[in-house]
Amino acid sequence: MENRSGRDTIRAVQWRGDHLRLLDQRRLPHEEIWLDCRSAGEVAQAIRDLVVRGAPAIGISAAWGVVLAAQRSDDLEAALAALRAARPTAVNLMWALDRMRACVHAGADAQALAAEAQKIQDEDLAANRRMGELGAALIEPDSAVLTHCNTGSLATAGFGTALGVIRAGVEAGRIARVYAGETRPWLQGARLTMWELTRDGIPATLIADAAAAHLMREQKVQWVIVGADRIAANGDTANKIGTYQLAISAKHHGAKLMVVAPSSTVDMDTPSGDAIEIELRDPDELLSHAGSRTVIEGANAWNPVFDVTPHELIDAIVTERGVIEKPDAASMRGMFKEDAC
Amino acid sequence: MENRSGRDTIRAVQWRGDHLRLLDQRRLPHEEIWLDCRSAGEVAQAIRDLVVRGAPAIGISAAWGVVLAAQRSDDLEAALAALRAARPTAVNLMWALDRMRACVHAGADAQALAAEAQKIQDEDLAANRRMGELGAALIEPDSAVLTHCNTGSLATAGFGTALGVIRAGVEAGRIARVYAGETRPWLQGARLTMWELTRDGIPATLIADAAAAHLMREQKVQWVIVGADRIAANGDTANKIGTYQLAISAKHHGAKLMVVAPSSTVDMDTPSGDAIEIELRDPDELLSHAGSRTVIEGANAWNPVFDVTPHELIDAIVTERGVIEKPDAASMRGMFKEDAC
Repeated sequence: MENRSGRDTIRAVQWRGDHLRLLDQRRLPHEEIWLDCRSAGEVAQAIRDLVVRGAPAIGISAAWGVVLAAQRSDDLEAALAALRAARPTAVNLMWALDRMRACVHAGADAQALAAEAQKIQDEDLAANRRMGELGAALIEPDSAVLTHCNTGSLATAGFGTALGVIRAGVEAGRIARVYAGETRPWLQGARLTMWELTRDGIPATLIADAAAAHLMREQKVQWVIVGADRIAANGDTANKIGTYQLAISAKHHGAKLMVVAPSSTVDMDTPSGDAIEIELRDPDELLSHAGSRTVIEGANAWNPVFDVTPHELIDAIVTERGVIEKPDAASMRGMFKEDAC
Repeated sequence: MENRSGRDTIRAVQWRGDHLRLLDQRRLPHEEIWLDCRSAGEVAQAIRDLVVRGAPAIGISAAWGVVLAAQRSDDLEAALAALRAARPTAVNLMWALDRMRACVHAGADAQALAAEAQKIQDEDLAANRRMGELGAALIEPDSAVLTHCNTGSLATAGFGTALGVIRAGVEAGRIARVYAGETRPWLQGARLTMWELTRDGIPATLIADAAAAHLMREQKVQWVIVGADRIAANGDTANKIGTYQLAISAKHHGAKLMVVAPSSTVDMDTPSGDAIEIELRDPDELLSHAGSRTVIEGANAWNPVFDVTPHELIDAIVTERGVIEKPDAASMRGMFKEDAC
């Protein structure tokens, strides 16, 4: 997959026949360190530790984790459970593991499980390409867009969800300016999105998360484009902390909000955002930086990783199946009804 | 000035007879390093480098800078100009320098200038105490409040503006929970506000700036309480980047926004926020952390230090002269008309 810079877009999750090779995203942009996982437990640990992040990439990695367990003749149910517990909010993780479990229950051997994992990975890449086309078509020429967190090649099988739309929109001449929020506390926007875009030759400008509303007012942003960790049956969307705030600011300024995610992110069993469990991570992620404490000892922090954006604030949900404008329970059911129990 | 912990509230700007001693706020909370300034140029440099920050503390420091110039028989007009240029947005800086210049033009010697600088400092402390009472009276018992940046003793002659209201509100039993946004890129909330509150025995919880809207929705915040760097004649308020975003989110959730600042922050010569120059600082403040680069080389950043919150989003402006609820040009004129040209 070539891009503007003539270099290959990165593939952060690589199956190597008997182990899973993961680009350690905690070390970017300083170092490109690859970690080899040789068991489901090691994959679960890598997911928990954010070596690999981004809902689709987590799902793909977990699928390969099941393959590793089968190759080693480990207890597959235990492997499925360990992988499932690694990140509670990402529904793609559950979805990928449900696919793998169905194969296990159908008697699949390690080779058949590897074929299924490869299929999940290939489908994700194809879905990203399709979403890129669909999403870019919604954007007027010469637009400015703002994205949050990292939803690119690093977060997926390749190309990206929201960042895939941005790649496609830049390529099609529809997007003139790209802004990225730095995305505290993990700085995925600063470290990863800026790394991907710069590497691909797409000029982008980093902002502090708190500067987004001021940016919308001063520089005129037409679209805020984000990914999703879970989309409920009514279109309510859980995504990286800060998305909800961007949605409110976008509405205030007449900018539009596009959510881009593969259909595996849609959870028709979750009726609305109120039912989505929000993962709280270690307060130390806010109290320290790069291993050194930035806040006085004894201080507390509240560190939710995600928030929920109600569907009323979302202008378009883009999946590989198509675009839902102004999503609600009825329009979501129309496109995803076969997924409902 | 005693507080809950039995320790003195910090005084970050200290006149020592022939030099100005400043607590280096860049080094907090790790180290309490004091810098001695012995000329107006050194004070201007300290203001520019953020050794001292917070609009009132900047104004007080600049006043002492003029005294230093007089003691050394330096060119006073050059000193006034150098100090004035140190931070463009903080109107207290211009206000304090105008007071000092009026004394210079009236023929004041170094001793008389020192008396004026001391008066500016004493008045600021008294104003903070008064604003604390006035602001706390607006808050219903058992409220949760969110603040941004640092507006405490470190940013003023002592006690604080927005943080003074929070101190007074906690003392009066009206505030049950205090949240502080970390305030990227300089982390004044994380480094300074958490340091002050913890030191004073006031429990507070740090959040990522991007988590504020989610906090308002999940934890019910009654008041967002912030300081100001400049308040225009119609109540539009320039303050630390992120304030505008908080104002929009507060409105969305039915939380109220209180701006707390001494009347020296009001600039009746600036008709509205549109006329306020917003300081842009070095992109490197977003591209690096603690001297090490966090973003890929070649990437750009946009780093406005302030934003403007329109008066329509402000529920109360609190100065030492009184409270203006739902501020607009008419109510501002009613309280500050004698300041108009």
